[in-house]
Formats: sequence, C-alpha cells, structure tokens
Amino acid sequence: MESSKHLYALLLAGGKGKRFWPLSREENPKQLIQLFSSQTLIEETYERIRPLIPQERVLLATSQALMMRFKGLFSGLDARNFIVEPLPRNTAPCIAVAARKAVARDPEAILAVLPSDHHVSDPETFREVLMAAVRHAERDKIVTLGITPTHPETGYGYIRFGDFEPEPASVECRYRARTIQAFVEKPNLETAFSYLKAGRYLWNSGIFIFKASVILNAFKEFLPDIFEQSEALLKLEAQATANSDAIYDSWERMNPISIDYGVMEKVTHDVVVIPASFGWSDVGSWRALTAFPNDNQENFEKGRVVTVDCSDNVLYSTYGLLGTIGLKGMVVVVTNGAVLVCPQDRTQDVKELVDEIERRDFTEYL
Amino acid sequence: MESSKHLYALLLAGGKGKRFWPLSREENPKQLIQLFSSQTLIEETYERIRPLIPQERVLLATSQALMMRFKGLFSGLDARNFIVEPLPRNTAPCIAVAARKAVARDPEAILAVLPSDHHVSDPETFREVLMAAVRHAERDKIVTLGITPTHPETGYGYIRFGDFEPEPASVECRYRARTIQAFVEKPNLETAFSYLKAGRYLWNSGIFIFKASVILNAFKEFLPDIFEQSEALLKLEAQATANSDAIYDSWERMNPISIDYGVMEKVTHDVVVIPASFGWSDVGSWRALTAFPNDNQENFEKGRVVTVDCSDNVLYSTYGLLGTIGLKGMVVVVTNGAVLVCPQDRTQDVKELVDEIERRDFTEYL
Repeated sequence: MESSKHLYALLLAGGKGKRFWPLSREENPKQLIQLFSSQTLIEETYERIRPLIPQERVLLATSQALMMRFKGLFSGLDARNFIVEPLPRNTAPCIAVAARKAVARDPEAILAVLPSDHHVSDPETFREVLMAAVRHAERDKIVTLGITPTHPETGYGYIRFGDFEPEPASVECRYRARTIQAFVEKPNLETAFSYLKAGRYLWNSGIFIFKASVILNAFKEFLPDIFEQSEALLKLEAQATANSDAIYDSWERMNPISIDYGVMEKVTHDVVVIPASFGWSDVGSWRALTAFPNDNQENFEKGRVVTVDCSDNVLYSTYGLLGTIGLKGMVVVVTNGAVLVCPQDRTQDVKELVDEIERRDFTEYL
Repeated sequence: MESSKHLYALLLAGGKGKRFWPLSREENPKQLIQLFSSQTLIEETYERIRPLIPQERVLLATSQALMMRFKGLFSGLDARNFIVEPLPRNTAPCIAVAARKAVARDPEAILAVLPSDHHVSDPETFREVLMAAVRHAERDKIVTLGITPTHPETGYGYIRFGDFEPEPASVECRYRARTIQAFVEKPNLETAFSYLKAGRYLWNSGIFIFKASVILNAFKEFLPDIFEQSEALLKLEAQATANSDAIYDSWERMNPISIDYGVMEKVTHDVVVIPASFGWSDVGSWRALTAFPNDNQENFEKGRVVTVDCSDNVLYSTYGLLGTIGLKGMVVVVTNGAVLVCPQDRTQDVKELVDEIERRDFTEYL
C-alpha cells in the first residue's frame, strides 16, 4: 500500500472518559487504558497508522495535565508535534491549530484526524480505507469514514449517504466514496432500526481526512474567529518570550465547538463519506466490549478471571483474581482499589455512580 | 443471671469453610473472618459466653495449623485449654477428649459445646436459654438448643419435638424443654415448608449442653472405641516425654464421626431440646447474610460500598471501594487480591468455583 509523503495524523487525545471508571480515572482517561491488549487505546491508534505515517508527521492534541503521560508513551515525538490545550475547547479549535502547523511545514499537507480512544479490529482494512480517503482529499474533498452498521446502535451519530462520487483512477472500487445527504443525531432505538433497514445510513466514526489548506478555507468561511485566533496563537508560540497567560487567553477566546457542528454539517457539498467495515467501535462504555467476546461463552475476559457457568459478560481484572458464578449480561471490573459491578444495560449510569462517589467524598477513588 | 461454677465451654474451631471464599482462605477459615463487626466469628462466640464462663473454663478444639492464630486471639487461654487435633476427626472425638479433660478438673463439670462460626443477634436471650439448659444438664439430661424456624430453610437439619419435659423449679417457663421425637436430615424446600407449617420442628443449632460424666457414659455405650482412645490419649499427653507420633496415631485411631450421628440420635430418650429464638444463624454461606440487612434497601453492606439503585444484595468490601449499579439479589465480595460475584441463589456453588481455581493452579488465591 502506497502512502503519501504529505500525510499527517492528528490524534485527538484530550478526553476524560468517566464512563470507564474504575479503569479510567481522572489522571488516567480512556485513551490511556488497556482494553484489548497490553497496549493503551492511544498506542493501538498509533500502531494502526504507523505503516503509513512516520512519527515526525504525527500531531497529538491533548491537555496540559496529560501531555507528560504522552511524552512518556511516545518518546520519539518532538515537542513541536504536541498541541497542548490549556483548557477544554472541543475539537474545532485544535484541528484549526493542527492544520496551521501542518500547512506551515508542507502547503500540500493532508491531515487524518483520528480519535485516540476507538477500537479497530481489522487495521489492515482500516489503512486501505484511509488511503482511499487520502486520494479524495488530494482532490480537495473533505472525507469522512462511515461505518456500515451491524446493529441498531443508539450511541452513535449517523450519516445518510447519497450517490457515488466520481472516483480518482487510483482508488480501489471497493472503497468508493458517496455524497452526504445529512448528518443525523443519535437516534432512539426505533429510529436506529429504521436506519439499519433503510441501508443508506452509516455510523459517523469521527474520523476525517482533508487537506490542511482546504479545512482552513472552511474555517475562514464558517468559523472565522477560530481561523484568526489559531493564526494569532501560532505567532504567539513562535515568540521566544511566549507568555503562558497570553497563550491561555488565546485558547480561551476560541469557540469550544465540535468540527462536526462547526464545519462538517455546513459544507456537505464538499464532504464525502467512504462506507467501510473494519471492526470499528468507539468503545463508548463497558457495554461496548460485549461486541468483542473472546471465550467460548460469549464473555469478554481480560486478566485473571475464573468463571463457573457464566455467559455474555464483560469480566475485567487488573488486580488479583476475579471469580464469578452464574452471571449473565453483567459487567465486572476489578482494579487495585476500586471495583465496579453492574448489569450491561446500566453501564450508561457509571457516570451517576462516579458522581455519587464524589458526593460521598471518596475522591481518592476517582 | 446466675451461672454455675461447674460450667465449661468447648469451642469447636477446627473447620475450614471454603464457602466464604474469598474472605475465608485456607489459612483464614470462617471462624476467623469478620462478618458482622470488627470481631471475628469466634471472638463473637467467646464474647457471648464471657458473662457466664471465665476464660480458664473455656476449652478450644482446633487444628495444629490454626492453634497459633487462636493463641494470638485469646492470649489469656492456657495451653492446657487447647485440644489440638493433628488431623480432622469430626466432632465426636474432640468432645470425648474435652469431656475427659473437664471431668478430670471437676467431676461435676458441665460442658456447653459451641460451634465457633455461628451468629447470634440476641446474645442476652442466648445466655438465658443456655442457663436453662444447664439446669436440665444438672439433672443428667443431654440438652440441645433448637431454633424456632423463621423460614423454610433447606440448609439446616431439623429436630421434631414431643411433650414438655418436667421442669426443674429454677427454670423460667418461657424456656421449657421438650422431649425429642427425631433428628431429621436437611429437607428439600417442599418438606421444609411442611415442617414450618407443622409447628413441631426446630432447627438443629449444633449447640449441646451436658455433664461431662453423662456424655462419657454415652460414649462408653455407643462409641466405646472413642471412649477408650480418648482415655489413652490423655494419659499419653500427661507423660513428660509424650511423643507426637504416638499422639497422632491415637487421634488417627478415633472414628471421625459427628456427635449427632454417633451419640445424639441414639440416646433420644435422654436428650431434650429447648426451643428458643435468639437470632441464630449458622451463616452457612454468603446468602445467609441476606437475613441481616443493614441499610434502607435491604442490602447487607460492610466496608466502603457505594450503590446506585441496588436492593437485596450482600455487598462486602475489605479492600478499596466497591461501586455497584442496578443490582438485585447478588453477592459481591472484594478482598485484597480476590473478588467474588454471584447471584444469591448460587452461593452454594462457591465450593465449585474454589475447586476450579485450584484446578487452574491459582492456588495463591485459596
């Protein structure tokens, strides 16, 4: 598979992720937990693109608090490859900053924007689809990857696609792009069923590929404040005497809006989607792991787990031995110092439990 | 309440108790776990009789492996108060040995035989009933305490009682003794319901009170081998040069039979039962704790536990924080290094889980 010397990756790694308590903690958010292997989700994300993109072209957007953790994980990553947000600003501002950084290095730069806390079980296909997207980006398209739904998921946004796009000669026909008719909010279960049946809806993966110059033009048109502030910020950072208060102010002035709302949904005539299947999941809660059973009883198991008569569970231990009897449809997570037990259909309430733990002042467990 | 200077206690503390894994371990059996307070079950048992029996008249039967643990817990207990079984011999042999020890100190000695891993929520009433039993024992009766059933329990043996016994003048009429018609095996649920309805059945508590001389006569009649071996053993131990191999052989030669089968069921004409209610439970499994809820949602909770929408559970943590959501009818036990999760109706299968852990060679967790 041929890559492109213009291709940059932007790993979005600023998230907090209360939903994976007790494995995720305040100082150890979701992108830093090991769910599927001995690698953290962000390491898996990086491994996935490594055959295509050398480390010097990987940008990483994160918070001040987490930067040191990532410097430890990716020791080859230069300080200039980090985009450090002094306060949470959602996705649009850091993408604008990343696009400016990339275009300064290479006016033809193409940016692949990748959430750092998703799972892909077929990375080879993922890379093929990514390169098909790059071919469209080279034609100034803004490309999103849409996942062919496998079930009526209510936790994802959807994309309704239209006709085939004209294909560049270099793109394999199995990854042909489609026009986008609409971005659709997370549906209720009934609506999700109708989407699945209709066959014209894809899951919005949150993965985008575009030329840095193209997205900057879109910012100029739809989010001119962020367009200007991001320029001012880079100038500020380039100064030898850069003052951290001024940098903070500059970030604070940027509108904390997502790239989806701020840009994608406004420029649909230039945005295309590539429908694909590469075993993608945003792993939005413990329940999501039920899609990846790894024993004969449809359990997802990790760590030292001994079961008697248990099926269809998520059983995860990072500390000592977890013994279970007669469980079905449950989530059990054991860490050194905190344990979670709940039915799979209640994993969305982990946040509520975390709030209750906070209210009872057991903050050392958060 | 007046006690008797002839009254001795024999605490039976040799049990292993796999059923409380992971709180009970090989080196930490059930009598040494803290279920209801910061005291172990055997300490609670001892506290219960302390107002009636001074420490020098407390005998403690246990295994070689556990003796040091009990010496640590009951530092005032003299070495001659221990009955150390070099191998498991069930209850009859150690009761014979204890009876011989007691009668050697006091020919009028009365022995109260008490399992060391039971719970009593009303110790004051327990002591009143115990002293009523002593009054009958003084008339050469073999007395058992029978618990008025509160539910159709299938985990206990039952006693069918007959007429009232003639009462010694000193016994309060609310603790009048009954003749025993039969000792009955653990019933199935249907039979347990019929016992409850019949109103003439009591739970067999395993608590016995008798004169040491009377029980020795019963041994002589029904278990003559144990009668003789126990005498030989005491002579052996009295020798300054007692050889541990000879002591082992002496124990090994004793028939490992329970006092129930070996004596009680054979001498029913001399055995009486006192029906009573003092919040007794043999705490046979984690499920037994559901009888002692301690929060507003009918949960039994101990340790640092935070719940959202949970009722009717046993939630026990000795290490870190346990967080649960949407649980009903479950048992969750967290210790440093091992966690158990199972529905309450599967707690009898904890042994099976322990066997599986052993089979998989995770013996450090047993």
